[in-house]
Amino acid sequence: MQVAIPLYPRYTALDAVGPYTVLAFAPGWTVTFVAEEAGPVTDDQGTLTLAATASYAGMPRPDVIVVPGGLGTLDVMGDTALTGWIRQAHEHTTWTTSVCSGSLLLGAAGLLEGVKATTHWALLDLLKQSGAQPVTERVVTEGKIVTAAGVSAGIDMALSLLAQATDELTAQSVQLAIEYDPQPPFTSGSPKTAPEGVAERALGLLA
Amino acid sequence: MQVAIPLYPRYTALDAVGPYTVLAFAPGWTVTFVAEEAGPVTDDQGTLTLAATASYAGMPRPDVIVVPGGLGTLDVMGDTALTGWIRQAHEHTTWTTSVCSGSLLLGAAGLLEGVKATTHWALLDLLKQSGAQPVTERVVTEGKIVTAAGVSAGIDMALSLLAQATDELTAQSVQLAIEYDPQPPFTSGSPKTAPEGVAERALGLLA
Repeated sequence: MQVAIPLYPRYTALDAVGPYTVLAFAPGWTVTFVAEEAGPVTDDQGTLTLAATASYAGMPRPDVIVVPGGLGTLDVMGDTALTGWIRQAHEHTTWTTSVCSGSLLLGAAGLLEGVKATTHWALLDLLKQSGAQPVTERVVTEGKIVTAAGVSAGIDMALSLLAQATDELTAQSVQLAIEYDPQPPFTSGSPKTAPEGVAERALGLLA
Repeated sequence: MQVAIPLYPRYTALDAVGPYTVLAFAPGWTVTFVAEEAGPVTDDQGTLTLAATASYAGMPRPDVIVVPGGLGTLDVMGDTALTGWIRQAHEHTTWTTSVCSGSLLLGAAGLLEGVKATTHWALLDLLKQSGAQPVTERVVTEGKIVTAAGVSAGIDMALSLLAQATDELTAQSVQLAIEYDPQPPFTSGSPKTAPEGVAERALGLLA
């Protein structure tokens, strides 16, 4: 399986690298970072740069696309090179996926009209504007479109995708290889469970 | 706080980028990827390249170091530029940390003699050879040395570290910002819980 992850200015690193690591460990899967032009692309903290090794034009028909989110997502909603590539790639993909605000880009590409989808908890209202039906779930599968909640949810999404695309044993083996037995030190990963005052602080970090 | 993450050939991407994302989102924290020389360094799948923006010599005294693991760890155990930097940086760090097989490099730098530490589940016996006392825990804190289990454990480690280095509210806010409310699709993240046959397959992926 050929997986393409598009990078654009100010993506969130873990949105891209969580699914990357899961899928790249799967036997027979190859993951390629793509951008309008091959070359370095820097994340939303300004301190992590990943190399895109192919251009959009050079990778028109991947089997799977994983569109990451990031603090720069809203700035590229009108980037037709990106949204055009997503729309055209989607015509031939087996799976079209997103993490966090990446689903807004699926929406900007016109793929979410009437489709149940999710995004980062702070952006569910915005997702509605693309015609999607926002759902508060960690991973939402609607036909071949799979959307994940914020940032770290891409790991859960990729494992779920891998199980659907191959088999449970393969996904379970990758999960064990990356020792994904999460033990967060706090119960603070969802606005429903976070202690009082945490959501305001979290929104400040995302502003 | 200045955090340095050393990159060497064939690190595992998520080992580095999990803690990176947690710590880079924390207000006032800056994370820098370092290597023997600044420049691109490719991961253990051969398909992800991160830019190191400083050399070891250019960053001798970070407050925190996070040493990632990877399929290339054993090949750099004798890399004295790397282990020498770890040893010297450790003299001045507030926290010296590792993810997955990165603890073997702390051991190679001579930092784990008699110290409780952890690593990837498949490497606990090997960790003993560095004089450490291997412990089967997700995150082990011994004084200023914090070691994490395999790959994805770096996220839990970084949140725990952030709470100790700052306060719980800051760590909880970052956890919510990255929506770290993990929901793995399978109970397969530990050799104790993985279904029969999964460990053999996982070891195959790591070979």
